Amino acid sequence: MNQTISLGRVRPARFSACRIAFTATRVFVKPYSASTRPSFLANEPEGPQLTVAIPGPRSKAILDDMATILDTRNVNMVTDFEASTGNYIADPDGNLLLDVYAQIASIPVGYNNPNLLKAVQSRAVQSALINRPALGNFPQHDWADILKRTLLKAAPPGLSRVFTSMSGSDANELAFKAAFMWKARQRRGEGKSFTPEELRSCLDNKSPGSPNVSILSFRKGFHGRLFGSLSTTRSKPIHKIDIPAFDWPCAPFPQLQYPLSDFESENANEEARCLAETDRILSESLGSVAAMIVEPVQSEGGDNHASPRFFQALRGLAAKHDIMFIVDEVQTGVGATGKFWAHEHWNLASPPDMVTFSKKAQAAGFFYQNVALQPSTPYRQFNTWMGDPARALLFGAIREEIERFDLLQNTVVTGDYLYAGIEGLRKKYPDQIKNLRGKGMGTFIAFDTPNRDKLLVQAKSLGVNVGGSGEEAVRLRPMLIFQQYHADILLDRLETLLRP
Amino acid sequence: MNQTISLGRVRPARFSACRIAFTATRVFVKPYSASTRPSFLANEPEGPQLTVAIPGPRSKAILDDMATILDTRNVNMVTDFEASTGNYIADPDGNLLLDVYAQIASIPVGYNNPNLLKAVQSRAVQSALINRPALGNFPQHDWADILKRTLLKAAPPGLSRVFTSMSGSDANELAFKAAFMWKARQRRGEGKSFTPEELRSCLDNKSPGSPNVSILSFRKGFHGRLFGSLSTTRSKPIHKIDIPAFDWPCAPFPQLQYPLSDFESENANEEARCLAETDRILSESLGSVAAMIVEPVQSEGGDNHASPRFFQALRGLAAKHDIMFIVDEVQTGVGATGKFWAHEHWNLASPPDMVTFSKKAQAAGFFYQNVALQPSTPYRQFNTWMGDPARALLFGAIREEIERFDLLQNTVVTGDYLYAGIEGLRKKYPDQIKNLRGKGMGTFIAFDTPNRDKLLVQAKSLGVNVGGSGEEAVRLRPMLIFQQYHADILLDRLETLLRP
Repeated sequence: MNQTISLGRVRPARFSACRIAFTATRVFVKPYSASTRPSFLANEPEGPQLTVAIPGPRSKAILDDMATILDTRNVNMVTDFEASTGNYIADPDGNLLLDVYAQIASIPVGYNNPNLLKAVQSRAVQSALINRPALGNFPQHDWADILKRTLLKAAPPGLSRVFTSMSGSDANELAFKAAFMWKARQRRGEGKSFTPEELRSCLDNKSPGSPNVSILSFRKGFHGRLFGSLSTTRSKPIHKIDIPAFDWPCAPFPQLQYPLSDFESENANEEARCLAETDRILSESLGSVAAMIVEPVQSEGGDNHASPRFFQALRGLAAKHDIMFIVDEVQTGVGATGKFWAHEHWNLASPPDMVTFSKKAQAAGFFYQNVALQPSTPYRQFNTWMGDPARALLFGAIREEIERFDLLQNTVVTGDYLYAGIEGLRKKYPDQIKNLRGKGMGTFIAFDTPNRDKLLVQAKSLGVNVGGSGEEAVRLRPMLIFQQYHADILLDRLETLLRP
Repeated sequence: MNQTISLGRVRPARFSACRIAFTATRVFVKPYSASTRPSFLANEPEGPQLTVAIPGPRSKAILDDMATILDTRNVNMVTDFEASTGNYIADPDGNLLLDVYAQIASIPVGYNNPNLLKAVQSRAVQSALINRPALGNFPQHDWADILKRTLLKAAPPGLSRVFTSMSGSDANELAFKAAFMWKARQRRGEGKSFTPEELRSCLDNKSPGSPNVSILSFRKGFHGRLFGSLSTTRSKPIHKIDIPAFDWPCAPFPQLQYPLSDFESENANEEARCLAETDRILSESLGSVAAMIVEPVQSEGGDNHASPRFFQALRGLAAKHDIMFIVDEVQTGVGATGKFWAHEHWNLASPPDMVTFSKKAQAAGFFYQNVALQPSTPYRQFNTWMGDPARALLFGAIREEIERFDLLQNTVVTGDYLYAGIEGLRKKYPDQIKNLRGKGMGTFIAFDTPNRDKLLVQAKSLGVNVGGSGEEAVRLRPMLIFQQYHADILLDRLETLLRP
């Protein structure tokens, strides 16, 4: 425990000009004295440092070389991770940018976080790396203890079990498989064995062994790019075209109008329309749907929000139709909305059946409660590695960092501050900022802008790394250690970019 | 570089009683002097150490606790990885077993290998863990260099590019997606854009945007358990039942009779029959098949072998029908057959189009050569992490260990020795050992035995950890550091188990 540990609890020395009411008294503020700055911010510069236009000469040379062995057309920016620090991402040409994209929303507590470094230097992580277990067959003796003090310590309310995996996409597919096997057991009758016809036909990928059952997802949802998860993804054609998909049902997701306060009845009607259509699809599916999957905020699909009431009703529809309610928290989970899990904003009467996670968690998998989601016999939900203990341990260090520095509260306060700042810009430049969304959702903020792709490129020349989603959304995905003084830099650059 | 480095090149002090001709002069033999023993064997016991029946009291208590948070019915043995060493796996009750299953064939160079430990203590691995990159968007500046000195240094002959992933199952699915996009581009015509109908229909999972195309696989093949890979898996009903699958074609895989020398013409006929049927299926598919996928040895499906001639002909059929030839080396790759990649046994005239890997590689992905396997536009073959640099670096250390200690040659020699020993047992107990297979394939050896499941359990009580595959196969999957004196222990225990 070092001198920075209690920092999350100091009273702010000053608030910046900010028009929203703070309910919190515990925030990080600038300037920190040398003795109070949290270790994860200790090596940050005062602001972005630009040495050369991006990509600079070293980056270009690296890309040319890289292109001989892999496809480089997706590259956004060549990165020097060892020179990156806190909220700042470095490139090999000496540029240092404020990063509010954070490896597609997957860096939680800063580049080169010293406490994460300590964690990966532990004997436990090193053993997990060099002795990688086949966890299903040969779990390490302390695996339950590790899960209890890492992933399960952060489990969503009401869910006390976990199935670990490798990425968000396969976490969703494992949840689908659990739902399919649960539904089949229910249909077959508890304790009933497989029929000879089922056993035979499944090897030919034919019904009844390979049944014609489905997962319902929502228009513009994104749940991954493997074949099952991609069949529930509806974000953009480029994610799906030319890849075979299961003919699974898709329900409409509300398209809300902003500002919310100006469109209360229209938005309520839109949500009611989507719920009615979802209910109709499920009613007409004749029991072939095993689960629905939904994101708390549709992220890749363009940062589309809906009200807690909408999600409460979805949860009710899942119960009504006796299907599993899967909440995909791959992008929304682990704090960026100001709660550890975004679905905690909904105040559900009963928890989701499964909550999937990855990205900022570094580990991946799904939480659940109902033991009926464990298949009827062993080796049905199985693979070689069944997760990654090294990443579970890393998650433990991330969770500790969040708790120790009260980073959820930090995200609430910084998020409100950032939202208010962008709201100010929206009033000044209403043609440039449309559909500002994410109020009260921490830093999980987005807006539409007409020349989005150009803005994302130009942002780099002003020292900020920003991501997009959907067709025209700028999505802000700062880390949980993002402070008001970082928000000031971002707001300054956004104004420069948006000023007509 | 330490004193053990040249050990792979010492001339043997003695050979054990072994009836096969050695072509090699460089082998490891027992006893090593204290100064010549390779570091990865340095802490091994003289033999298995049994303190209590498995599962012992500590293991049982751990399992009871574990069952409260996860499904423990797949557990084979609770493992103490920190107490495991070299070829020996430890449990928390103090038992130490000779391990010829090796985390489902995925530990290459021993538990707690000191050189792997050094690798994961490097700054590079630690940075890759705490700053996990979204490699597609923000590759680290030295990513090409890392790939060149790790994965690509071991690339199969003729393949110089790599696409990294997370596991064997998703490596196969990425290869499928590459094949589908390649085939669609070919059908559409180079440079032609997507039609509005394709762009629209794919969001509904409908043709033509989500086309009705397929991957051909082989009866009893295993390629993973995600929804696309599972659609090519045909190993056992328990792997597939109740999970929806694509209606993709399945060709017969030769069922050879043993000993091979007694059934030359029967086996040649069987292979010809399977090839003719594969050719027929492809001819009748009217261009809807984009690729075929095959394992060099069908592993999960029961260790089913075919001749190099069969695979040469398959490669020819893939070319004839203008489809991709994907070789799944997830279990066969990285040395256990005595070659780095098992398909090197085939002497193909032209290399496979894609070779997938995982398990012993610790890293995962597919090798390829043809740039037409890179999709027409960016963001089509994409996901957040796109692999795991920490595991690529670990693969580098594994590859170095294999080279430094000449572990391929070690595996050839030890494998031949082990095979000859089991052949001796087969002659003594012909009712107990049937269909012995894997001659000349390193330690990748299997045989059928009537009471297989009972044997696997009893083996533990004699101090060896052995795995099964298919319905009645004992599959041996020792690590690459397995020595003749380990084989002697295994043969002794097998004889005890098989003696009527």
